[in-house]
Formats: sequence, C-alpha cells, structure tokens
Amino acid sequence: MMSGPGTLNLSLASYTRVQDLTHTITPETPVFPGNPQPVIEPLRTFEKDGYYANRLTFAEHTGTHMDAPAHIVEGAAYANELPVEQFFAPPAVVDISERAATDPDTQVTPDDLLAWESEHGSLPAGAFVAMNSRREARIGDPVSFINAGEDGVLHFPGFHPDAAAFLVYERDITGIGVDTLSLDVGAATQFVTHVTVLQTGEYGLEGLAALASVPPAGALIVVGGPKVVVGSGGPSRVMALFSVGAHGFRHAAVA
Amino acid sequence: MMSGPGTLNLSLASYTRVQDLTHTITPETPVFPGNPQPVIEPLRTFEKDGYYANRLTFAEHTGTHMDAPAHIVEGAAYANELPVEQFFAPPAVVDISERAATDPDTQVTPDDLLAWESEHGSLPAGAFVAMNSRREARIGDPVSFINAGEDGVLHFPGFHPDAAAFLVYERDITGIGVDTLSLDVGAATQFVTHVTVLQTGEYGLEGLAALASVPPAGALIVVGGPKVVVGSGGPSRVMALFSVGAHGFRHAAVA
Repeated sequence: MMSGPGTLNLSLASYTRVQDLTHTITPETPVFPGNPQPVIEPLRTFEKDGYYANRLTFAEHTGTHMDAPAHIVEGAAYANELPVEQFFAPPAVVDISERAATDPDTQVTPDDLLAWESEHGSLPAGAFVAMNSRREARIGDPVSFINAGEDGVLHFPGFHPDAAAFLVYERDITGIGVDTLSLDVGAATQFVTHVTVLQTGEYGLEGLAALASVPPAGALIVVGGPKVVVGSGGPSRVMALFSVGAHGFRHAAVA
Repeated sequence: MMSGPGTLNLSLASYTRVQDLTHTITPETPVFPGNPQPVIEPLRTFEKDGYYANRLTFAEHTGTHMDAPAHIVEGAAYANELPVEQFFAPPAVVDISERAATDPDTQVTPDDLLAWESEHGSLPAGAFVAMNSRREARIGDPVSFINAGEDGVLHFPGFHPDAAAFLVYERDITGIGVDTLSLDVGAATQFVTHVTVLQTGEYGLEGLAALASVPPAGALIVVGGPKVVVGSGGPSRVMALFSVGAHGFRHAAVA
C-alpha cells in the first residue's frame, strides 16, 4: 500500500526564485464549454462551528489542471498512478504570443520548437514543453478567454499535432502544457495532440499561469498533481524554480 | 493579477530520491467525524463522449490536506493566499510510533523535540515538523484509523499544545504535520495546537503518508497546496526530496 521512494536525479545548484504557475479557482473560472462551474459551499462557519471550512464541487478539468493519460486513452494511467518522478522536470517555454496577438488559431509548430533549440540548445531530457500564448491576459473575462464563435467553434492557440509528434518521437519529454483550455488548438475537431502525448504515458497541463515570468530555459517545474482514485486529471499546484540571471533570463515585463 | 516570482534560497546539492507523502483520496477515505465522504461521479465516459472525466465533491479537509490559517483564525490567510515560498521546507520527522503503539492518546512533547535536536542538531530555519505515529498503518480501516470510543471521543496522537508553543515561540518553523486526522490529539476538546500554529501564518498538514520513508533530517518537502478562492485548506500533493545515505538515513522497514 505504501510505496517506497522513487529515483530522481536533481543536480541543482541553487534556486533563488519560485514562481507560482497556478490560477486561483473561483466560481467564475473559465471552463471548457459543457463543464460545470466550480461550486464552493460553506460547510463550517465561525458563527456556527467556531472554525471555517468549505465543500467543493468541480469537474476534474478545472483551473490549472492536469490531463492524465486515462483522460483520452482507455486503460492508460490515471492521474493518481503517475510516478512522482514525473512531477519534476525542466521546462522549455515556447513563446508564440506575437502570432497569437493577431491569430487566435495559431499553433506551436515543429519550427517553433527548432527555433527554441537554436536559441537555447537541445531540449533537455525529460523536458516539459509549455506554450505561452499570453491568452492568460483574458483569464478574468471567461467569454474572451474561451472565445467561442457564433458557430460554437472555439478560438485559442494550442500545440499542432506535428509538434506533439516531434516532441514524442524525436525528443524525450515528460509532458506539455498550455496557458489555454486545451493542449489542442480550440478549433480542433479531433484531439490528435492529446492522443499523441497522453498515449505515451506523459501528461498535459492546461490553464498554466505566469509563464512569462519563467525563463525559457534553465528552470525546474514542480507539479503538485492530483491524487484522487481513478483520476482523469485534476487541479494541480504548479510552481517553477529558477535563478535570476541564469541563462540570460531577465524578469519579463508582466501585464 | 499575476504576481511575480518570490524569493527562495534553495542550496541543494543533489537529490536522488523523491517520496510521495500523499494518500490517494477514495470514497472510503477516513474523514473527520461529521464531514461528508468524498464523491467521485463520472462526468464524461469513453462510451458516450470518447473521453473520460469525473466530477468531484469533497470537504476541503479530506485526505492528505492543508489546514490554512483561515481554518481556525478569523481573518487570517486563506490557503490560496499563502506565499509559495512556504511550500519548500526542510522537514524534521519526529517518530513517536513506539509510544503510539500502546498509547493512542500520546502526544509530541517539547522533550520529543529536544530529543530530535540532540540527535540531529538544531531545527533548521523554516523547518516543517512532522509527527510520525505510524497510525497510517490503519488508513485502509477507517474505523480503526479514526478510533472513536463509545463516548464519541477520538483516540489518535497529535502535537501537545506545549510542543506547538515551543516550535512557534522558541524556534523558526514553516508548519507542522501529522499522519493522523488532526494536529491536535484526537481527544482534545479545544484546538489549542491548531490555534497556536495557524495564528502565526504557518500551516498544518494532516493525513501525511509514508513518513517512515523520509530521513528524519536533511530532506526537503515540497507542498503542492490547494489554490481555490477563500480556501480554509484542501487536498495537497506533498512530496519529499532527499539523498540516500545523507544524514545516516537508511530506508526504514515499512509495513
């Protein structure tokens, strides 16, 4: 029932900064269309009980959250079964915000990944590749964040399936993440990027926050993933550790 | 809305092990008497939707979880407001399992803390002090884990208020944790240990797992705490990083 420690090899010099990459879940948190809004109900109050606590009801895929392999691939690993070794990974932040500012359907392509590599070197083993489209700036306005057309088609950036295949078959990754509602682009009719990444036992993180405050290379992400039985995923506390000055990173201007 | 990175100073050599300290939440997870059992309901199924997801309903204080200052102290910090710098701390594991085996009402005392210090040196700055009573061995049997007498009084170990006061006023800690349902001993009629620790802005972790697999000194815990608005606490993914061989630790025999 109790499992022993897993093997990890973190050769860390010294981290001087920690950045929270997690949005606060509220009743107004933007959710994928069709999913229920989170509900927060008082369960204990100071007035009645002398202490304070709530009951929470939400879909697993709410807020900054994990997509586990079982979300898309029948019989694959549940969120609670992922080895915790996978929760420590070097992030590669790919910034497509310039294109995304004018094209809400833009995608991370293999060329974007090769451009990242020519600037920062090869993707490190076990990399966690995160798309920063700066869609996060709209998080307080769910209609604009979700961005559904009159035909119901969603418009937000994601990973192109070719980029997912490149990462899975040509590189060694731990997972991919986005600052939008889905690993696949909003307008996708099939979830090819999801399938490509999750079928290998890797995971996705959706709704990431503050990626502009993380160096594109040289950091470490820590994923406090969900541990609920038969989990398809769930809210996760994601944090990045890094050193200021490392890898040429300077704190980005943040809106 | 987006906050910048916080300051941290992790001077880490190299960690070779990661140990999950988190129990899996199930519908049968032992909860504090009066709290509802967690509910896991299918929201999407492969048969109907082509993918899989659940809706979750639970009390914040379920499974391995955080007690935030706001749980006990009106107006104090909510779980979602705690700075993430507090989520990285050197744990000091205090093993009272020998006493707990015969006395379910035993408590961590200042003498236990002084004994830890004479073996391992002074508590490090920002220590997270965790009680290992091995009550965890009963986690699969909620009646025995909760251990209510016929009079309704609960019987499980916790921190004596004097130990809490010693840690808060004589040492520099980040929080305290237990492998039972409460920071205070089960038979407590008032929650003095809770108040003493939480009123200072520090936090508690309850229902910790696998503390016997963590070295008593020299590790680092990482707390993936909850980030739900007005949170009194909530399920947290807690992990410990350490090196095998460091500080004389050898993997303990685990039931």
